[in-house]
Amino acid sequence: MRATFMYGAGDVRVENAPDPAIQQPTDAIVRIVRSCVCGSDLHPYHSLPASEQGTPMGHEFLGVVEELGSQVSGLKRGDLVVSPFAYSDNTCDFCREGLHTSCLNGGFWARGDVGGAQAEAIRVPQAQGTLVRLPVGEDSALLPSLLTLADVYGTGHHAARQARVNARTTVAVIGDGAVGLMAVLSARRLGAERIILMGRHDERTKLGIDFGATDVVPERGAEGIDKVRELTRGQGVHAVLEAVGYLDAYETAAGIVRPGGVISRVGVPQYEDAPVGFGSLFGPNITLTGGPAPVRAYIDELLPGVLDGTVEPGRVFDRAVGLERVPDGYRAMDDRTALKVLIQP
Amino acid sequence: MRATFMYGAGDVRVENAPDPAIQQPTDAIVRIVRSCVCGSDLHPYHSLPASEQGTPMGHEFLGVVEELGSQVSGLKRGDLVVSPFAYSDNTCDFCREGLHTSCLNGGFWARGDVGGAQAEAIRVPQAQGTLVRLPVGEDSALLPSLLTLADVYGTGHHAARQARVNARTTVAVIGDGAVGLMAVLSARRLGAERIILMGRHDERTKLGIDFGATDVVPERGAEGIDKVRELTRGQGVHAVLEAVGYLDAYETAAGIVRPGGVISRVGVPQYEDAPVGFGSLFGPNITLTGGPAPVRAYIDELLPGVLDGTVEPGRVFDRAVGLERVPDGYRAMDDRTALKVLIQP
Repeated sequence: MRATFMYGAGDVRVENAPDPAIQQPTDAIVRIVRSCVCGSDLHPYHSLPASEQGTPMGHEFLGVVEELGSQVSGLKRGDLVVSPFAYSDNTCDFCREGLHTSCLNGGFWARGDVGGAQAEAIRVPQAQGTLVRLPVGEDSALLPSLLTLADVYGTGHHAARQARVNARTTVAVIGDGAVGLMAVLSARRLGAERIILMGRHDERTKLGIDFGATDVVPERGAEGIDKVRELTRGQGVHAVLEAVGYLDAYETAAGIVRPGGVISRVGVPQYEDAPVGFGSLFGPNITLTGGPAPVRAYIDELLPGVLDGTVEPGRVFDRAVGLERVPDGYRAMDDRTALKVLIQP
Repeated sequence: MRATFMYGAGDVRVENAPDPAIQQPTDAIVRIVRSCVCGSDLHPYHSLPASEQGTPMGHEFLGVVEELGSQVSGLKRGDLVVSPFAYSDNTCDFCREGLHTSCLNGGFWARGDVGGAQAEAIRVPQAQGTLVRLPVGEDSALLPSLLTLADVYGTGHHAARQARVNARTTVAVIGDGAVGLMAVLSARRLGAERIILMGRHDERTKLGIDFGATDVVPERGAEGIDKVRELTRGQGVHAVLEAVGYLDAYETAAGIVRPGGVISRVGVPQYEDAPVGFGSLFGPNITLTGGPAPVRAYIDELLPGVLDGTVEPGRVFDRAVGLERVPDGYRAMDDRTALKVLIQP
């Protein structure tokens, strides 16, 4: 099959790779129908050391079940399924608590002997716990929106849910990438009536307004903090949904959150230490939460609104490429000419 | 009147000071009946730079209303009242959200022109919002337990409440000081059935067991982390109530918390930066919460159990001194011959 590998910063190649095969009785093989490039794929695109050994890429997909291990039930060949960005057994202590990203038998795509999703096919460990059947056909117009259940929509929802967003919550979203926009949509879905989107890309913030943002703040840093404080009678917001991952976004979050409020992070932190002491989080009783979203836990809740068209998270895809043009997709996302790139292998 | 001042590390003096007087129509003057020394008073006791100018000390008290400003209603001379460790108007946006420590018109004792509580009397700003009438007499045997509502009991409750402790929560408490023991009592009161107390002072951990601790771990650092993990099938606890405030306690908390769990801090952090990135909090979806407890918000909930004897938080006081012997009280708490020192001016 053809599959995408990264050989170092900026060096993405589509190459021949062995067809995936069942290794464990809990595995499935899925032919990929839609995949995409994630904002988090840009981190290695900027910093991966050059290597002779390519790293398989991609962790979001939906596709058709082609083969099933002997211990997989509840699925059959030909099912159209969506997969979370982490695989999980859906039965362990952590899965039962809704934290599938910490599954005792789970893991992440494109690690070890598990391939990436920017490919023609993939081996799915823990297939029964991982894959969710979709009640549509391969030709459905809903595929882009359904694909967001694999990561960005569930991740935006996680940010809002961990911040306990409700109708009384004033929300700020930091970042107008796909996850930030999904955080806007999710906060609105959970009832928030005031949603401030911090972002400076017109096309994206316009989509953010469609998704429910009531205010857009293009300023950054101290200026951005002042602007959000102005919009909130100097008090700051109850919930900051941080969808960037850089330390300056953390600092902005700490600057605009209201005493007693929540900073909910879903941008993968590109830092380890940060201020958490009396002068930052402790004194004003700020809660810091978030992490990799257990999107498997959310699919049942989010799927109906996608199927009935109440929400259209698939609007974050503004470009589509075939598998051979995935390297162009990375470039387009990196230079911000594309918000999120859909892959049709 | 006589009042306590600190002139530098280890230098506590009881001296003559001007009698407090009404300054604002929202003030009251309270004659102090019981006060105490707080574990947090030991931080300046260790580190306050020497100065010619003494700093007033003490932030926990109950006493009798002696005078009332013209705008204070709901209280009368002669009322026995308890005061939270922060004063607040109980009506602003933050007070209405239950965060009295961030009151827009509030503040803390022993700052600016507001005196300390290790004294014979004190001026209480925002008296109507701050003081809570107690339905007992000055001679009540319940005074020590009622005094804990001013700080340590409410602070332990805040730790447990912010961690959303309930019957299904496995809890670890770091620290066997008065606040740690109150966190144990509070976790038990909220239903927790498994409470691991990390502390190494026998007299204190015994009291912790009386308050509801099911396990005691005297080990610290890596050894302590291993021990708590052993006790929890390698998974860690749902809620860590951190009642110490040093960075090593934070690191222990991060080491024993379960993926998806909560670190709830009420020990005043003696650090500003700490690990919060992928390898510590983000990857396993740990929530970090806590801060100065809005104890005013909790008095109504906690008072009945104190009055009817369901809980006996006053057992944390293991020594009582008159005002002139407050310096001995500091020494006793500092060398750990006393857990918490009651002051009877």
